Amino acid sequence: MSDRPNTPLLDLVNRPADLKQFSDAQLTQLAGELRAETVSAVSETGGHLGAGLGVVELTVALHAVFDTPRDKIIWDVGHQSYPHKILTERRDRIRTLRQKDGLSGFTKRSESPYDPFGAAHSSTSISAALGFAVARDLGGVTPEGLGDAIAVIGDGSMSAGMAFEAMNNAGHLRKRLIVILNDNEMSIAPPVGALSNYLSRLYAEEPFQELKAAAKGAVSLLPEPFREGAKRAKEMLKGMAVGGTLFEELGFSYIGPIDGHDMGQLLPILRTVKARATGPILIHALTRKGKGYAPAERARDRGHATAKFDVVTGKQHKAPSNAPSYTSVFGKSLVEEAGRDDKIVAVTAAMPDGTGLNLFAERYPSRCFDVGIAEQHGVTFAAALAAGGLKPFCAMYSTFLQRGYDQVVHDVAIQRLPVRFAIDRAGLVGADGATHAGSFDIAYLANLPGMVVMAAADEAELKHMVATAAAHDDGPIAFRYPRGEGVGVDMPERGEVLEIGKGRVIRQGSRVALLSFGTRLAEVQKAAESLAAKGITPTIADARFAKPLDRDLVLDLAANHEALITIEEGAIGGFGSHVAQLLAETGVFDHGLKYRSMVLPDTFIDQASPADMYAVAGMNSEQIEARVLEVLGVARIGEKRA
Amino acid sequence: MSDRPNTPLLDLVNRPADLKQFSDAQLTQLAGELRAETVSAVSETGGHLGAGLGVVELTVALHAVFDTPRDKIIWDVGHQSYPHKILTERRDRIRTLRQKDGLSGFTKRSESPYDPFGAAHSSTSISAALGFAVARDLGGVTPEGLGDAIAVIGDGSMSAGMAFEAMNNAGHLRKRLIVILNDNEMSIAPPVGALSNYLSRLYAEEPFQELKAAAKGAVSLLPEPFREGAKRAKEMLKGMAVGGTLFEELGFSYIGPIDGHDMGQLLPILRTVKARATGPILIHALTRKGKGYAPAERARDRGHATAKFDVVTGKQHKAPSNAPSYTSVFGKSLVEEAGRDDKIVAVTAAMPDGTGLNLFAERYPSRCFDVGIAEQHGVTFAAALAAGGLKPFCAMYSTFLQRGYDQVVHDVAIQRLPVRFAIDRAGLVGADGATHAGSFDIAYLANLPGMVVMAAADEAELKHMVATAAAHDDGPIAFRYPRGEGVGVDMPERGEVLEIGKGRVIRQGSRVALLSFGTRLAEVQKAAESLAAKGITPTIADARFAKPLDRDLVLDLAANHEALITIEEGAIGGFGSHVAQLLAETGVFDHGLKYRSMVLPDTFIDQASPADMYAVAGMNSEQIEARVLEVLGVARIGEKRA
Repeated sequence: MSDRPNTPLLDLVNRPADLKQFSDAQLTQLAGELRAETVSAVSETGGHLGAGLGVVELTVALHAVFDTPRDKIIWDVGHQSYPHKILTERRDRIRTLRQKDGLSGFTKRSESPYDPFGAAHSSTSISAALGFAVARDLGGVTPEGLGDAIAVIGDGSMSAGMAFEAMNNAGHLRKRLIVILNDNEMSIAPPVGALSNYLSRLYAEEPFQELKAAAKGAVSLLPEPFREGAKRAKEMLKGMAVGGTLFEELGFSYIGPIDGHDMGQLLPILRTVKARATGPILIHALTRKGKGYAPAERARDRGHATAKFDVVTGKQHKAPSNAPSYTSVFGKSLVEEAGRDDKIVAVTAAMPDGTGLNLFAERYPSRCFDVGIAEQHGVTFAAALAAGGLKPFCAMYSTFLQRGYDQVVHDVAIQRLPVRFAIDRAGLVGADGATHAGSFDIAYLANLPGMVVMAAADEAELKHMVATAAAHDDGPIAFRYPRGEGVGVDMPERGEVLEIGKGRVIRQGSRVALLSFGTRLAEVQKAAESLAAKGITPTIADARFAKPLDRDLVLDLAANHEALITIEEGAIGGFGSHVAQLLAETGVFDHGLKYRSMVLPDTFIDQASPADMYAVAGMNSEQIEARVLEVLGVARIGEKRA
Repeated sequence: MSDRPNTPLLDLVNRPADLKQFSDAQLTQLAGELRAETVSAVSETGGHLGAGLGVVELTVALHAVFDTPRDKIIWDVGHQSYPHKILTERRDRIRTLRQKDGLSGFTKRSESPYDPFGAAHSSTSISAALGFAVARDLGGVTPEGLGDAIAVIGDGSMSAGMAFEAMNNAGHLRKRLIVILNDNEMSIAPPVGALSNYLSRLYAEEPFQELKAAAKGAVSLLPEPFREGAKRAKEMLKGMAVGGTLFEELGFSYIGPIDGHDMGQLLPILRTVKARATGPILIHALTRKGKGYAPAERARDRGHATAKFDVVTGKQHKAPSNAPSYTSVFGKSLVEEAGRDDKIVAVTAAMPDGTGLNLFAERYPSRCFDVGIAEQHGVTFAAALAAGGLKPFCAMYSTFLQRGYDQVVHDVAIQRLPVRFAIDRAGLVGADGATHAGSFDIAYLANLPGMVVMAAADEAELKHMVATAAAHDDGPIAFRYPRGEGVGVDMPERGEVLEIGKGRVIRQGSRVALLSFGTRLAEVQKAAESLAAKGITPTIADARFAKPLDRDLVLDLAANHEALITIEEGAIGGFGSHVAQLLAETGVFDHGLKYRSMVLPDTFIDQASPADMYAVAGMNSEQIEARVLEVLGVARIGEKRA
């Protein structure tokens, strides 16, 4: 506690309503305290730091001017919400961020009434705010009431098609609605695309320093209370604008750009908007990610995400890694393949670092395409690259590929175009929680005709699968791999092209066959070791492919064992369902087979350590072992022997 | 043949290269002939008429100026491509449009090298064109070569987020790329949204008549060959523009608006663009859907889609219907429920007529939201309406809901918000073919924790499910129903609220249980009648719910029958997979059960009549009967008895 910052004003705040007691000068001081508290908390927990630091003043100003939770503040993505959480009755738990049973690293409806609409994926906030505005005007009833709807969205998120769809709809409906464009010129990577250039021009045309003075001046002219009509006040504010026609053409009133760290601009503008807004308004606020904490401001990603760290030095406490991450294995393997084949290109949706494509982009900048937060476009763009005779790798997280699902079906699978999907973060992901889990991709890809679906059992397998995908030119192919480090196996010099639709037997045993799809193989092997001590030696196989399924392998395992258990880090409908369909169709069940399919449970699993999450999911070695004993009906014997 | 139009010039055209022989005046005449041929062909086949008629001149001009198939014309959606098909070596088959083994009603890569990128869902064309442009510049190799990439996209399609994502990326990459905005102020329904208003303002500000003259004048000034540099020519064309800043701000050069039916504007502008374009260019062409065929021009939907018709009168030959369509039953049932509950609201993504929400919109205009072609936004908007205390019905076709899949997962399911998904066109859809089939929704919804998934067995069941969804306030709920007419059952006065997770036994029999999920129930019943003549009386059950599954019903059927067969109009991973998982987990398979799961086959099924498609899918009564006989091992006995 002694290391914690001195926060006399913040200590007086139990809920946002307490901010009403403060003068504007005190609110400015409070913002400083809130920044210090945020840095202190994240230094203990790790997490997303830079985004929150960039909106400290905005957070204070919004809560000081508006009346939450009746007014709805919707933080896009939600990783900038830590200061918001501190102000909204969660300061006592802020040091449990992203821990098991602690606060979520994102906004979350079930966590607080001050989080009216949870997030984690980007670009949903305007749609959500518009929904609340409409519900308000149509007499919707909620426990907290329905007041203003305020979306706070970053410039990166604004580039996603979904945000444009929402703007288009909002401009049409003309409901009172407030969108704050939090323009920090950074999402996770620097944003790309024409919109980003446009925003840069907006403030390049009239230098920010002059504007800041102008804005202050204009606002100080506003009398209290406003004697002029709404029109006058709005026009005065619009007079500050140096651009914004793109937003005005979509039906929004545009205010800005303003300095998002200057309470002297934020407070009067928000007050005026609150008093006078009729239709949709966009406030363009310039902020700096990582603002006010030097180590974050200096970092290339502006302190986007961090491990626990020392507040004074900024030094992060990262556990040493024993094996390369799957992400880096993918990135390096792709660079190697691309060195041998100049038709290989790569597509990422604003995640060059997260997907390991940064390595590829450094080596082959003209062959790497960061399309922005635009999975829909990215997938179809990749499909056309394939139609144009290139070999595109489309690298996305499993959960984000959901954004491009129709494009996978309609543009890739139906046309049998050889797009290679590199699916990172497949399965459970730890601290990012349920919203980032990659649970559904096996099911939603393996039921597409002509799609090849692989899962890597370890990092060497991943390297083989990159090579296999590069060589596969007859239709689409996907390979999935989890977040985190590999298991430490020896890496082959070069990836081997695997035979499509063929799995491998790891160890021949008897009675029970464990057929793994993906990285649970290591836990299966651990379970087998423990079972051996109980006199049971399972056969272990790695399916490699969910589609096409290795029919011979599956039927052989079924024919020669009393029990067959599949295991995969995915929801029902995927690998196990394909195995069951094969067993049913071939009549294997007619005569009896102890078949079980271990899949992710039918719940969204909250954030925790990976080990804890696997325990919840029933997928660690002890649970696999227990399953085998139960199926063989030897649980008690096993216990006695142990 | 005697009724066919006189087409002397068109008869000389075997491929687009043949257009090079014609003068501009002849090309204008050719356009007239092409229009007559299009009307004549569609009068015999039925299909999408209005969209094609709106782009006849554009089609001729593009093929006359560019060199297809080396240059890539990508028709967004593709239902305007019939004139294009006539010009591109498919005139001999144009009267097989949308028939089994005939031409697709959309563009299709496997059909012709002149269709470089197939479509059917909207708003993919700019992404695809950009992919071809990049492939060209990176040395991609295709059989036809890679030249210019030209996307032709309607104003409705342009409103989708995906198109914005592609524009944003194209404006950033600055590749030579041509986008033709085919602005007919109509998609299927009149377009909505701020972008549509913006486009209207573009030509309202400078009346079209004057502009037309101005454009002609400006173009006539262009010398042949162009002596000015590229910059000069571009600026002259830009001088015609009355607006377009929105597109220019995204990095495109804007030309327009021009009269898309005037070859005197189209040809010189396309020639100039071909000669001089460097970066991305948007040509804004004003057209009229249904142009030149009076019955289409008069129709409210401008002849969007039609049955076979009489060319002279425009009268359509529609088969009389025996039962109401599922779509209309949904629309009427929702109006009834909404009359009893003023919290019910509805969301459609540009398909008010197709989803039956036109009925709701007429009765409750302030409670119906057409968000445009914007499924991503539409789903999240609906989620927020639910969070705001309303009861939203989100009505979308199964295949289009794929566009909002991530939003279903992230905004609806994870937050357990009570959005009601009314999923039309679930299953096979006939003439629209594979791209419109609703094959995957059971799988991709039923594996989401907390989602309730129903399928209506007939139109009365659909009415009950609308009532059930209206009453269900504890999390999301979805109900699916197919394209086409109901089976003609008596309709209840009022929909009944079904017990969640409970199926029903239709007929108690023995030996084999047929467990149906959805409208295949009628075929199951027919199969059972035929089986009765062979001495087999199956138990028939309607599951109603894929999730939560009626465990008691499934286990009871399994326990009391030698065989259990599930049937659903969906791909693997859905209802049958959930049944198999239950049977596996409860150990039913341990001791043997003849279990089979009839699902859609692992192929994309091309267009045909519904009956033909069901035959391909193995889902008609004869095939169900054959399956029963095969499973019971009595096929030969049955045949002998028959």
